[in-house]
Amino acid sequence: MRKEELNFTTVEQLEADTEKLRGMAIDAGTETWQERRDKQQPQCKFGEEGVCCRICSMGPCRITPKADRGICGADAHTIAGRHYLRMAAAGSAAHSDHAREIAHALLKSGPDSQFNIRDEAKLLRIAGEWGIESEGRDIYDVAHEVALHGLNEFGKPFGTLDYVKRATDERQKVWADQDIAPRAIDREVSTSLHMTHMGNTADAPTLVRQSLRVGMADGWGGSMIGTDFSDILFGTPTARATEGNLGVLEQEMVNIVVHGHDPAFSEMMVLASELPEMQERAKSVGAKGINMTGLCCTANEVAMRHGVRMVGNFLQQENAVLTGAVEMMCVDVQCIFPALGPLTDCYHTIFVTSSPVARIPGSKYVQFETETAFEQAKLLVEEAIDNYKNRDQQKVFIPEHKEEAAVGYPCEQIISELDDVTNSHSVLTVNGNTEERGSYKPAIDAIRAGVLRGAVAMVGCNNPKVRPDYSHIDIMKTLMEHDILVVTTGCAAQAAAKAGLMNKEAKELCGDGLRRVCTLVDIPPILHMGACVDISRMMLLATGIAKDWNVDITKIPVVGCAPEWMSEKAVAIANYVVATGLDVYLGIKPQVHGSEQMAQLITEGTREITGAGYTINTDPEELVKAIIEGIEEKRKLLGI
Amino acid sequence: MRKEELNFTTVEQLEADTEKLRGMAIDAGTETWQERRDKQQPQCKFGEEGVCCRICSMGPCRITPKADRGICGADAHTIAGRHYLRMAAAGSAAHSDHAREIAHALLKSGPDSQFNIRDEAKLLRIAGEWGIESEGRDIYDVAHEVALHGLNEFGKPFGTLDYVKRATDERQKVWADQDIAPRAIDREVSTSLHMTHMGNTADAPTLVRQSLRVGMADGWGGSMIGTDFSDILFGTPTARATEGNLGVLEQEMVNIVVHGHDPAFSEMMVLASELPEMQERAKSVGAKGINMTGLCCTANEVAMRHGVRMVGNFLQQENAVLTGAVEMMCVDVQCIFPALGPLTDCYHTIFVTSSPVARIPGSKYVQFETETAFEQAKLLVEEAIDNYKNRDQQKVFIPEHKEEAAVGYPCEQIISELDDVTNSHSVLTVNGNTEERGSYKPAIDAIRAGVLRGAVAMVGCNNPKVRPDYSHIDIMKTLMEHDILVVTTGCAAQAAAKAGLMNKEAKELCGDGLRRVCTLVDIPPILHMGACVDISRMMLLATGIAKDWNVDITKIPVVGCAPEWMSEKAVAIANYVVATGLDVYLGIKPQVHGSEQMAQLITEGTREITGAGYTINTDPEELVKAIIEGIEEKRKLLGI
Repeated sequence: MRKEELNFTTVEQLEADTEKLRGMAIDAGTETWQERRDKQQPQCKFGEEGVCCRICSMGPCRITPKADRGICGADAHTIAGRHYLRMAAAGSAAHSDHAREIAHALLKSGPDSQFNIRDEAKLLRIAGEWGIESEGRDIYDVAHEVALHGLNEFGKPFGTLDYVKRATDERQKVWADQDIAPRAIDREVSTSLHMTHMGNTADAPTLVRQSLRVGMADGWGGSMIGTDFSDILFGTPTARATEGNLGVLEQEMVNIVVHGHDPAFSEMMVLASELPEMQERAKSVGAKGINMTGLCCTANEVAMRHGVRMVGNFLQQENAVLTGAVEMMCVDVQCIFPALGPLTDCYHTIFVTSSPVARIPGSKYVQFETETAFEQAKLLVEEAIDNYKNRDQQKVFIPEHKEEAAVGYPCEQIISELDDVTNSHSVLTVNGNTEERGSYKPAIDAIRAGVLRGAVAMVGCNNPKVRPDYSHIDIMKTLMEHDILVVTTGCAAQAAAKAGLMNKEAKELCGDGLRRVCTLVDIPPILHMGACVDISRMMLLATGIAKDWNVDITKIPVVGCAPEWMSEKAVAIANYVVATGLDVYLGIKPQVHGSEQMAQLITEGTREITGAGYTINTDPEELVKAIIEGIEEKRKLLGI
Repeated sequence: MRKEELNFTTVEQLEADTEKLRGMAIDAGTETWQERRDKQQPQCKFGEEGVCCRICSMGPCRITPKADRGICGADAHTIAGRHYLRMAAAGSAAHSDHAREIAHALLKSGPDSQFNIRDEAKLLRIAGEWGIESEGRDIYDVAHEVALHGLNEFGKPFGTLDYVKRATDERQKVWADQDIAPRAIDREVSTSLHMTHMGNTADAPTLVRQSLRVGMADGWGGSMIGTDFSDILFGTPTARATEGNLGVLEQEMVNIVVHGHDPAFSEMMVLASELPEMQERAKSVGAKGINMTGLCCTANEVAMRHGVRMVGNFLQQENAVLTGAVEMMCVDVQCIFPALGPLTDCYHTIFVTSSPVARIPGSKYVQFETETAFEQAKLLVEEAIDNYKNRDQQKVFIPEHKEEAAVGYPCEQIISELDDVTNSHSVLTVNGNTEERGSYKPAIDAIRAGVLRGAVAMVGCNNPKVRPDYSHIDIMKTLMEHDILVVTTGCAAQAAAKAGLMNKEAKELCGDGLRRVCTLVDIPPILHMGACVDISRMMLLATGIAKDWNVDITKIPVVGCAPEWMSEKAVAIANYVVATGLDVYLGIKPQVHGSEQMAQLITEGTREITGAGYTINTDPEELVKAIIEGIEEKRKLLGI
């Protein structure tokens, strides 16, 4: 297909659908994030700039022209720095607490349990890494010991996290020398809160250094454990076809949306919905079947493992309900709008919360228990089916747009794809060292040759501070044109899906080099690596490239970009990506700019510690220009 | 001495001294908290009311008449509830991280170490509680196993904290039934941050319940470990005489102030200053000796164990420097004004920070290491002595006021004092069951008889939102007049010391009953129980009274009061005191009052969970009236 013949959904089309649904919300007497955003204008500039302190009850204090310090004497740098560290700590806590739940599920896995081992090889590999004997042992014994070892990473009193040893020697040395190698995950969180408590650290560089460390406790701790243990329990994802956008909802089927981040609950929902008895039940109520779909990172999890179709990303969560065609929305943790409570009140949609960590008014609460998970899921699927009759067809509007997407490219899949082209005569074999299978060398060769200029990890949320999805899509398209491969997770991945960029045909939008690579390897130009916790996969990808290339990770032309980030998890992620030695390009300003010192520290100061830092620009065109320049600069320094 | 003859320092005199010092600060071209407070007016009402949310970068969002929800849909209850839980979590993290340092010091204790065992009996008792064998073992082997067990309380993957078993059976049942028994300390902190992360718990009752739980992780976890391990290492405090207020600084001596919370560093400073060679060195520079003094909770720690004199409390920290007579101020963690950096720049005072958790610009940083602590302390004392010559006598003004204080009444000391009067014919033996030694029964008898009406735990900080120290002193005096015994810690204790209320002669200010008790037992009417972490001692005191009385802890006429609280630690404390079943009277509003639901939950809602709640009143006269009514109501319900 030629470029001109591609007819992918445009941002304008996405926006038109959203606008129509928004109008329906207003008709229904309710509101959506757009109205709430408008009512919040103007937003508090002290908060925006990070110079408001609410850490003790002498306050709130604000830095103003007449007041350069808070009551205790904290200045703008202290106040902004403490808030920044607290955001990183909360993000790390969120990711890691999610991982803890998966670890507990692994601990309860068994042949007759609700949770089984689906990737034995990965389990054994991790057991080996951690010095856990597996020879001749029952696989579940090994699993339980691995789970226990993982749980101890949250609270061990001594030493640093074991996964740190996965990094390059150079990185491990940097982390040790700079004293930012993370100790127990929860300890780094607690210590961060202690440091930012009234009357403790006031020194901005120290606060930034701890932000790196608590971020690392996420990326090389909680998130990495979450990803690995999810792969063990639910299978390491593999390439598969799916579709994305609101158009995946079906007019004549029972639509269930799973939403959140923790795959343990959604896996059970997916499996329950696939039971023949459930499909029969759906038919008995006049539906053609059950349409299981996903939202946000839960969508990424189940899409990569089951091909479950993806309704959309963060700012699309209300839209799903507004279609009037969703019988049930089941959520687990993180990024769930509290607005779903009052919104679902106006529709027939049953809003189900499942985690004690995410209790939300206006929901039906079914506390998910590992021992009874599947039975609970079956009951919920039945309830969703029985709710089909309550759908008000007058209120139904399902936008037609949806796009095909090839998803499921964790590190293992990328290497497998590269292995398939090893030894072939191709653009990839420029330096002739692609004989070695099971490595990133073919990709490295393509980068060295300039066929690919580099790679960008596109990650992050949506944020109404910018035009939603536009930044993601615009930046990705420009990178594609410039022969820069994109790996993606989270809401960025969903934006790509909605715009067709994970369709293999999207190679036609690419420059010559990237297009040839996509053709040869048979991949889309945007590789879907999973949910937000799976940014840990990206750290291993970059580490693998650096190792196979035998250069410092800071030197490879690979960077991260979060153009629409919103959550504290994103702050934790940005910190561990920088700690890993990769530059990060942000499209939303961290709320520190009331402090020149903090603004300097996060953009330049960290470069002296880890060799990487942020570049911040709220204009996506300028941001992608900076990314390309950054990549070309790295190439130049490598002499390629 | 008759009441009329007592000549204790009045609040007005304290204020006059502060005012004079403040004038000197202005003359020196610097500023103090009073100017900074004035410049912060008016304080942000959204922050005051708890309806400002900065948890994600879509915000800041505020609840206003036109906007009843933030962009995600969080309403006032969600926003205020999340902020409240985060304060409790940060407070718990701070106390507990301090305890972790003490645990590491205990782990490194040894006969030839810088840290030795000073209370072997307490060590053995705790070893017994925790099922650690001690029979025939080297005491340091036992200490190390106890330390390790304590460290594991921070991160153990399963179960609830071991110290929970110290509570009454009734409390343990409440905590289990209500699911608020704390799991590992750091886990409760991390989970609290996770719950309050964007898109998680929006349900205010759930947020309040977790506040209780994370508070418990402090009071029945971190703080209790911190207190016990400090007692093991530095000795359980005993009654001793000291003095309090700025007048303890000496015109002709080298004045050193230790300030903060962690006794490990200050203990070494005290011991180093007592070396004959140091006293000699001081004389060699023309001083009469070394005057070691304390500020804030560090003062409480060293006063109770060494009789070190107390310069003052939280809002007095700048005053100490402003006397111009302090050669060195050594701080560890928590409640240190960042203002001390620029302030000490204007004076000869050397400002020393010692903890990686509390780095402060403008200080000399000497990272305190358990292996070299004493040598580091000696070097610092020498440096302070050598700084004596730099004192500018023109700038020196030491207010004359100081008061004698009897300090050092942990539970063990209280029981010991009561034992001394057992079997005596006294007001305490009304019900005739005071034969039993080693119990609180004599005190219970006095309460039953009405000789004492009850007891109040006076705790907390200073806060410029009210007239500093006035609330503490006014409430304590009124309680004394009403025959209510006061136990106190932290800045409240120091306020009492400054006002002479810990002088045994202060019994003359009491009602007849309390005065008789003070005379008979030979105690002051305000019993000093230590630093803020030692509020855990108060929980054991109340538990002991409930056990010896054989009534539920919620029924005994014992309550807590924090009239000038300021820090997040205070929020953690208030939560664990309420969880323990004791009502808490607050003189500063928690920043939740923009949510009616949250205001109701913390004052009334918790009563359904734990049997206790807050009473909030910023007027000290009204607050103490409410306390007395609360105590009399409890008496009435007990039929006494």
